[in-house]
Amino acid sequence: MNFSVSKSIEILERTPTVLTAMLQNLSPGFTSNNEGADTWSAYDIIGHLIHGEKTDWIPRMEIILSGKQDKTFEPFDRFAQFENSKGKSLEQLLDEFKTLRQKNMELLHAKKLTENDLAATGIHPAFGEVTLAQLLSAWTIHDLNHIAQISHWRRPPA
Amino acid sequence: MNFSVSKSIEILERTPTVLTAMLQNLSPGFTSNNEGADTWSAYDIIGHLIHGEKTDWIPRMEIILSGKQDKTFEPFDRFAQFENSKGKSLEQLLDEFKTLRQKNMELLHAKKLTENDLAATGIHPAFGEVTLAQLLSAWTIHDLNHIAQISHWRRPPA
Repeated sequence: MNFSVSKSIEILERTPTVLTAMLQNLSPGFTSNNEGADTWSAYDIIGHLIHGEKTDWIPRMEIILSGKQDKTFEPFDRFAQFENSKGKSLEQLLDEFKTLRQKNMELLHAKKLTENDLAATGIHPAFGEVTLAQLLSAWTIHDLNHIAQISHWRRPPA
Repeated sequence: MNFSVSKSIEILERTPTVLTAMLQNLSPGFTSNNEGADTWSAYDIIGHLIHGEKTDWIPRMEIILSGKQDKTFEPFDRFAQFENSKGKSLEQLLDEFKTLRQKNMELLHAKKLTENDLAATGIHPAFGEVTLAQLLSAWTIHDLNHIAQISHWRRPPA
């Protein structure tokens, strides 16, 4: 299997530090920048990552590893952050993300996943059958893509 | 003028911290990853950024602000890092970049650039006339693009 949990954890566990280095104490203009109508700002993205920690990756892992008959994942709400982030500062969101990610990494370590676990499957509501290895790999790539996006969005505002 | 030096400095000065958060103590497989033949690894990129601190941005600013008749920039060597980084660890390169960038930011602050300075021009060997504002903007975007690239290259190795 071309998938290494420990390698993914190396990336996943440092994402809060990377995002904090990129965004903390930046002038507000930067972090509310987006790429036009219906695109997300850095602030929106951190809210989206928080919602992912709570409802996406780890809960889906638990479904895959459960004894349940029906292993269909709950659909992920891509717009939950617009409600959930209300009234919170970017610093608060970064802290919240850091705490949730840390807890999830501890949980992932504690699972001591075997090759059999990684080959176990669940049903993604859009993509169909996915293995746990694919889910963890997608989680990692998802982080990397959002970091790249946010890097572009830190272009100094005109 | 749509260009704010202080906004660019906000981004430029935090790049060493961002890159360190992304790369420090990662397994070697990640930082020597590239995207195939003739592409650069994260290690190559840090060497490239170091060479930029030494020979590109600030030296070109000095040419623009000089009283010289001929304000043509020296061509930038895009391959210097392959020789200059030899024998150095990634941690050494990150430290070197941090020190050079910090010195250059102090220099930039000390210049107290005026609107007239920002409108002054030099001659780019490939693109022709550029203003100091354009040069500083390009420096910032150059950072952001390499951060985004490196983020993608941190995909866990197969």
